Amino acid sequence: MCAQYCISFADVEKAHINIRDFVHLTPVLTSSILNQVAGRNLFFKCELFQKTGSFKVRGALNAIRGLIPAPSGKPKAVVTHSSGNHGQALAYAAKLEGIPAYIVVPQTAPNCKKLAIQAYGASIVYSEQSDESRENVTKRIMEETEGIMVHPNQEPAVMAGQGTIAMEVLNQVPLVDALVVPVGGGGMVAGIAITVKALRPSVKVYAAEPLNADDCYQSKLKGELTPNPYPPETIADGVKSSIGLNTWPVIRDLVDDVFTVTEEEIKYATQLVWERMKLLIEPTAGVGVAAVLSQHFQTISPEVKNICIVLSGGNVDLTSVTWLKQSERPAPYQSVFV
Amino acid sequence: MCAQYCISFADVEKAHINIRDFVHLTPVLTSSILNQVAGRNLFFKCELFQKTGSFKVRGALNAIRGLIPAPSGKPKAVVTHSSGNHGQALAYAAKLEGIPAYIVVPQTAPNCKKLAIQAYGASIVYSEQSDESRENVTKRIMEETEGIMVHPNQEPAVMAGQGTIAMEVLNQVPLVDALVVPVGGGGMVAGIAITVKALRPSVKVYAAEPLNADDCYQSKLKGELTPNPYPPETIADGVKSSIGLNTWPVIRDLVDDVFTVTEEEIKYATQLVWERMKLLIEPTAGVGVAAVLSQHFQTISPEVKNICIVLSGGNVDLTSVTWLKQSERPAPYQSVFV
Repeated sequence: MCAQYCISFADVEKAHINIRDFVHLTPVLTSSILNQVAGRNLFFKCELFQKTGSFKVRGALNAIRGLIPAPSGKPKAVVTHSSGNHGQALAYAAKLEGIPAYIVVPQTAPNCKKLAIQAYGASIVYSEQSDESRENVTKRIMEETEGIMVHPNQEPAVMAGQGTIAMEVLNQVPLVDALVVPVGGGGMVAGIAITVKALRPSVKVYAAEPLNADDCYQSKLKGELTPNPYPPETIADGVKSSIGLNTWPVIRDLVDDVFTVTEEEIKYATQLVWERMKLLIEPTAGVGVAAVLSQHFQTISPEVKNICIVLSGGNVDLTSVTWLKQSERPAPYQSVFV
Repeated sequence: MCAQYCISFADVEKAHINIRDFVHLTPVLTSSILNQVAGRNLFFKCELFQKTGSFKVRGALNAIRGLIPAPSGKPKAVVTHSSGNHGQALAYAAKLEGIPAYIVVPQTAPNCKKLAIQAYGASIVYSEQSDESRENVTKRIMEETEGIMVHPNQEPAVMAGQGTIAMEVLNQVPLVDALVVPVGGGGMVAGIAITVKALRPSVKVYAAEPLNADDCYQSKLKGELTPNPYPPETIADGVKSSIGLNTWPVIRDLVDDVFTVTEEEIKYATQLVWERMKLLIEPTAGVGVAAVLSQHFQTISPEVKNICIVLSGGNVDLTSVTWLKQSERPAPYQSVFV
């Protein structure tokens, strides 16, 4: 497997050792009402409680710590583009190691994420929302700062770092039958797939993405890398990126299925988790929940009973939330925790 | 001690056995950013994850299960008045035991709490906001239904049930120096004080209440029970009630201090927990957090280092939240979980 893909499970194991003293072993929570709604046993891996408020710190830290023992010494700077969470994560990791960080951010990124990047001491540089603009601005900043690029999802050290989530889940939920993972650039789902298929190949790995940003679904359908044709419009701002050259082969071979969900489904699932589980997830994390509640998911065999959904982050700009609906209470039970 | 107060620690121990199979042993979470802001080690007892979304189910269940073995058989109905959470809790407990429940609720209670009471199958009866109106309506309903009253905070079985929180905290945070507890009618703080002072008398018990509903503070100051003179206006809807004849003697003797906080402090603390800890607490739970962050709390000896704040509940009507401020990020670290 190692030869085929840009990372192997050994890289994930190394990442685990590399970062474990700096990240949280986040808890797995359950909810009997969500189980009722889904008709399966759900386990929620709470990466919203992770340092910097999302899983992204795993990959960013692994990448940065991999740069430090370079023979040429510390890099002059690190640079990345990010819709927010990877930017925060890299800013945090760079600060830990005393390296200046420059984060290229689309103007449309949530305010709270931009403020947090600055609070970690990193510099923000704005781009347009297109992939092309991002890449161009990033290249310019790299030249100007002599900085090293840490790509948010195609960087192998980042993919390996995200894979550590799966190492934890397989320990925390020994009877897990499937993991459900939101997919943007695919760094998390690829790292997780590499890990799961190495350690317990019978466990399914499902990707979840907005219908409005369904490049992963389209790529699997066509059997070839098919990026989003234009910048997608979705409330799940963390998964607007397309999968790329490094994540695609892993996704093609090791991800068992892809579930797409509408904006309404994402909002409903996010509000459900807020109201019933009292967990302030961001809509991107709601994508995985929405996938499990979708019609399409009903076609999955009932033997795939114990499902772990990665709640990828909790960095939501509450002052801009305007889409909440008066709560309906379809079932008699409130939020519960086991 | 037993003779002086309406409950003893033995009642709390019995309550623990009575309810433990039906409630969650809720987790204790920590946050390095909150520690930084407070300058102490904070431990958050997450009763927002409790069944029905608040600690109230502990007392309600203990009371209802105490009624069941009555020689005259099951009661025809249970009745209570509640700003919401006790109503939900009693509705849930009554449903478990197959007893009709009637909940007297002020018109002004949050919509989500009223809907949840109905979702548990209980009947809602409206009253005015004054203590007098509540009592009158409740009496009428008791007569009409031949129901048994389960008072939300002065009922001894309820007080004993809430005390089980402290049994858990003393196990979960062995080095705890103080517990901080929001106080409305005082059932929770009384049950907790009875437990803490029986098991580990050196541990402090602090009450926290809105300045706009400071009957507990005034009572301690004057040395006599001093109810709120008029229905208080506070965003912390769960602590509008005054302490009463059963909780006052316990509070008078066993609660070490009372901290009052302004509405602005409550809102700030609540938003801080939402944004940094990703926990959707209700403002009533924010009262305890606000107390620990208050100027007054700075006068407490630094030796009182490990503070456990009871996050009492998470039943907040998100569609009516209009007071959020654009987030400021005073410190470089985001939400964390240990």
